[in-house]
Amino acid sequence: MELFEAIGRRHSYRGGFTDSAVGRGDLQAIVEAGLKAPSGKNEQTTRFVIVDDEAVLAAIRAMHPSNKAMQQCRAMIACIVDAEPEAIYEGYSFQVEDCAAAVENMLLAVTALGYATVWVDGWLRVKGNAAAIGGLLAVPKAKVIRIVLPIGVPAEKYPQPKKKPFTERAYFNKYSAG
Amino acid sequence: MELFEAIGRRHSYRGGFTDSAVGRGDLQAIVEAGLKAPSGKNEQTTRFVIVDDEAVLAAIRAMHPSNKAMQQCRAMIACIVDAEPEAIYEGYSFQVEDCAAAVENMLLAVTALGYATVWVDGWLRVKGNAAAIGGLLAVPKAKVIRIVLPIGVPAEKYPQPKKKPFTERAYFNKYSAG
Repeated sequence: MELFEAIGRRHSYRGGFTDSAVGRGDLQAIVEAGLKAPSGKNEQTTRFVIVDDEAVLAAIRAMHPSNKAMQQCRAMIACIVDAEPEAIYEGYSFQVEDCAAAVENMLLAVTALGYATVWVDGWLRVKGNAAAIGGLLAVPKAKVIRIVLPIGVPAEKYPQPKKKPFTERAYFNKYSAG
Repeated sequence: MELFEAIGRRHSYRGGFTDSAVGRGDLQAIVEAGLKAPSGKNEQTTRFVIVDDEAVLAAIRAMHPSNKAMQQCRAMIACIVDAEPEAIYEGYSFQVEDCAAAVENMLLAVTALGYATVWVDGWLRVKGNAAAIGGLLAVPKAKVIRIVLPIGVPAEKYPQPKKKPFTERAYFNKYSAG
């Protein structure tokens, strides 16, 4: 798929999925897209666990009571960073940015390959959800699952959220209240 | 350009630029790609100032003594977030992630349109650099420039950094020391 088409079609999908599996070739292609994202000082800090084991997926699906994409996902990608990221430049770490850039590449790859997903983030940080999934995936104590992507073939039309127009968020040469 | 080709070609470019201008149509297309990125609760928090005024660019170019792409950029996109981001979910803000996802879309758009750029981030946080550029662009006190992208037509071959292989960063179903 052409880049700008993929960017235009990508949107957060919280609907149901068909029974179709997500093949390992496609899952690897999606994660390879993530590996190619930039990272602070090229440290490539994000790690990925790709889940396609039905028993593990069944346990994870039962955890999210309000997100149909999580409940019905045919595969999941867990994006993992250090629990206490090391400062690599003037006291700063870039692991959150590294992970987000990798995820954006993967969202576009998911879209181009005909699947759908949603960036699940805040939910992981409450009620021990990240640690519970981390336990299922043998994530070490020094690491934390920062983002998960539940993936499948979309079974329904799910509305693409409205975006503000260019003039409300972008300006030439001088910031404006817009 | 096809999505996976753009993802494969994108890399941090710190080399020089030709004298060719970056047209406003292309600059707008690049920022539109950023606007379409996902954001926490679809809050679309990142704002963008696109710099193509030669007087402003000249002042910014003089600031970075070690990055040729900054010194020779024909245009620049400043990505702006709140200085004190508001918590929007269980005490968490997602403005860093929002900004990084928008930047990744823009890096791919820059690549597809035949330009080059580099994600400049840590440098902004030291020696008052973000505030100095913010002053030139009339960025309000409550906002901060988090990332800038110096853009132009690449004038040289610049090596693409090596990336670790899939097996060192990604695993199926269980985290592994890799």
